[in-house]
Amino acid sequence: MNPSPQTEVPHVVIIGGGFGGLETAQRLAKSKVRVTLVDRHNYHLFQPLLYQVATGGLSPANIATPLRSIVRKQANCEVLLAEVVDFDLEHKRLILADGELDYDYLVLAAGATHSYFGRDEWAKFAPGLKTITDATEIRRRIYIAFEAAEREPDPEICKAMLTFVVVGGGPTGVELAGALSDIARHTLTHDFRHIKPKDARIMIVEAAPHILAHYPDDLSARAAEKVRKLGIEVHTHTKVTEVTEDEVRLSGPEGECVVATNTVLWGAGVHANPLGKKIGDALGIETDRAGHLPVSATCQVAGQDEVFAIGDIATYTDSEGNVLPGLASVAMQQGRFVAETITRLAKSEPIEGAFVYKDRGTMATLGRPFAVAQIGKRQFCGFFAWLLWLFVHLMLIVQFQNRVLILMQWAWSYATFNRSNRIITGEEPVKIVPPSPELSKK
Amino acid sequence: MNPSPQTEVPHVVIIGGGFGGLETAQRLAKSKVRVTLVDRHNYHLFQPLLYQVATGGLSPANIATPLRSIVRKQANCEVLLAEVVDFDLEHKRLILADGELDYDYLVLAAGATHSYFGRDEWAKFAPGLKTITDATEIRRRIYIAFEAAEREPDPEICKAMLTFVVVGGGPTGVELAGALSDIARHTLTHDFRHIKPKDARIMIVEAAPHILAHYPDDLSARAAEKVRKLGIEVHTHTKVTEVTEDEVRLSGPEGECVVATNTVLWGAGVHANPLGKKIGDALGIETDRAGHLPVSATCQVAGQDEVFAIGDIATYTDSEGNVLPGLASVAMQQGRFVAETITRLAKSEPIEGAFVYKDRGTMATLGRPFAVAQIGKRQFCGFFAWLLWLFVHLMLIVQFQNRVLILMQWAWSYATFNRSNRIITGEEPVKIVPPSPELSKK
Repeated sequence: MNPSPQTEVPHVVIIGGGFGGLETAQRLAKSKVRVTLVDRHNYHLFQPLLYQVATGGLSPANIATPLRSIVRKQANCEVLLAEVVDFDLEHKRLILADGELDYDYLVLAAGATHSYFGRDEWAKFAPGLKTITDATEIRRRIYIAFEAAEREPDPEICKAMLTFVVVGGGPTGVELAGALSDIARHTLTHDFRHIKPKDARIMIVEAAPHILAHYPDDLSARAAEKVRKLGIEVHTHTKVTEVTEDEVRLSGPEGECVVATNTVLWGAGVHANPLGKKIGDALGIETDRAGHLPVSATCQVAGQDEVFAIGDIATYTDSEGNVLPGLASVAMQQGRFVAETITRLAKSEPIEGAFVYKDRGTMATLGRPFAVAQIGKRQFCGFFAWLLWLFVHLMLIVQFQNRVLILMQWAWSYATFNRSNRIITGEEPVKIVPPSPELSKK
Repeated sequence: MNPSPQTEVPHVVIIGGGFGGLETAQRLAKSKVRVTLVDRHNYHLFQPLLYQVATGGLSPANIATPLRSIVRKQANCEVLLAEVVDFDLEHKRLILADGELDYDYLVLAAGATHSYFGRDEWAKFAPGLKTITDATEIRRRIYIAFEAAEREPDPEICKAMLTFVVVGGGPTGVELAGALSDIARHTLTHDFRHIKPKDARIMIVEAAPHILAHYPDDLSARAAEKVRKLGIEVHTHTKVTEVTEDEVRLSGPEGECVVATNTVLWGAGVHANPLGKKIGDALGIETDRAGHLPVSATCQVAGQDEVFAIGDIATYTDSEGNVLPGLASVAMQQGRFVAETITRLAKSEPIEGAFVYKDRGTMATLGRPFAVAQIGKRQFCGFFAWLLWLFVHLMLIVQFQNRVLILMQWAWSYATFNRSNRIITGEEPVKIVPPSPELSKK
């Protein structure tokens, strides 16, 4: 409505309001630049807790904070709700689905989504967990499965309905399976009349030799032990060869097998946002199989000093030849570095040194109060690690209200084994219940 | 899976887990019957607070409690997630979308939805507010409107984008408009760079001479005064004659007029669930224009002693010839009466007397701490009425956790003017932003 202030300061455009993009925007608050943060959604999503939404422990809004409210006091930053579809690098311009946007500096922080390793037709049977829509869809499937089983007279079909296959033994898969076990063994105990929710079969399928393969061996083993104690089957060295509406085919050390199930949840594979490949193609830079855009030691894209890529959309290889993992902390540290770099460039100062990642550790929860954590060189496991996990995640959540609400919701869930957000939403909540004409004869 | 207990007690089937159906089920806890509560959704929805979800004050799960968890301890009650499509009254059987269900007693408590007075084509431009899907859709439209206006260079179009027309001056419309005013004048104050959210134009359009027409004249006048103070235009004696994607046509005392707007919210009209008409047609009973099924003084359907209809799906005319209003308290009191009646019938005792409605009052909030309330013959208005409203609504919410969480969320919103649930969800949140090719020139 009112025109932008006609300032002469450089315009920094950041694509993506995730951990990396938001950190970049906020670290530019005191720089002599104007910042536009472009995102397809109007909120920053705290992805590490998305599995809690998918399992009914938290509401979507608990982990999604409006971007505008986060940067409302940052005068040099504006938020633009828009979809970037292409680049005109020559004219330093973004092509939006419904307009254009010029930049002086561009920070690509559009993240990644899950990947079906070329079998995209599996997506409709095995939803992944990257967005709020994904999470509410998974929540719907989990609770609908119990509802359908309650109505099913045929014990074989009922068993299939209560079989949950989680593909991928990384943090997402393991946390999802752990929460599923809590639901089956505690939350729903008294809710049904014809089934015992604790009879649910929960499987983790992982192609690698261990679950949580990126964790130290010790922790990975402790996690596997805990997961088995929760009644979850762990199938390592096992690949998924087919997924259909009512079964999943596995190929493992004991050969092929077919598991009858209506609920397959996808926690495997990562594919960078296609915008990375778009820039790569335009500049003749090859992206890797997962679509990651390689960047220089200063997070710049080769041949484009004013274009940076950070977080899950980029591949950063450190001075020792290691590729940095796809973690929020990597994206945030890169965001900080890029903000400092742009600040220097805007003042026509040279860039100082290369980006250096400080590994502050990683952690995952497994069911009720248990977690594994690696902090620097120290490892923790069990209840203390869980408290640590709780503390770190609450501190990281952007907005104060959410912290308090989440803590209260957790305290309540912990005391009562309850999950209050297990509502089934979506247009047609009943439709996926399979026909059971025998119902009236129950 | 396991067969139902082979008891000989009568089977009471209740259609609908709203205020009336749930009350009936719970009041049958100690009766010698088995109860099946059938609903299309797996939750009880606290509809009086739905406008809070639609305006981003609360999360859907705050006002939706899983039906199973409400009746988990009631051994004689089971919940069935299913859609009823027809009746076979002769064989005392329900036809479900995917099965059948026999009953001995049937309680029809399927409620009502909004009505477009025969202009169903308006539905897609003017969403109503009866379900969680409705509420998140309205939330999406409200916040997208501000986002679109922020990007719009043409002041005329921008003005249309910031025009909100609420059709209907009943409690739903008035509470929605009040919350919209809070959003525009407080919540979003610092969020935008190109628009002033408080410039938003909010209109209530009401065909009757007053808003809150069912309230005592005094209260209705006080409410109208307050609503105007909130900056909301009130157009009474005014009918909507056309709704399209970008305008609404009104016909009022000053003749016809056209209002350019992208956001029309529908708070008018009621139409009973079509199941009422289905039963009416089967029995040759005429339903009224809004599809309400008339019932006897004992809430029974003529000619079917074992079929009861309560709440918004029925028309109950009391001994003085007054038709009872469509309020939660009517449905709940009818539920209690029907539960007692069925208990007596199951023991082969005669029905005692007719249903008598005790009017305990009614109340509505209007923006920040202000409400109007009528309790018995007393009327309250302002801050005290708002405290009363808060207390009554918190006490009524079914599950303890929700009470605490809602109170906290409200306390926070009240202290900070913030609405933390204003996330835009849905598959394609960006798509309704209209094209603005001028964007890069801003």
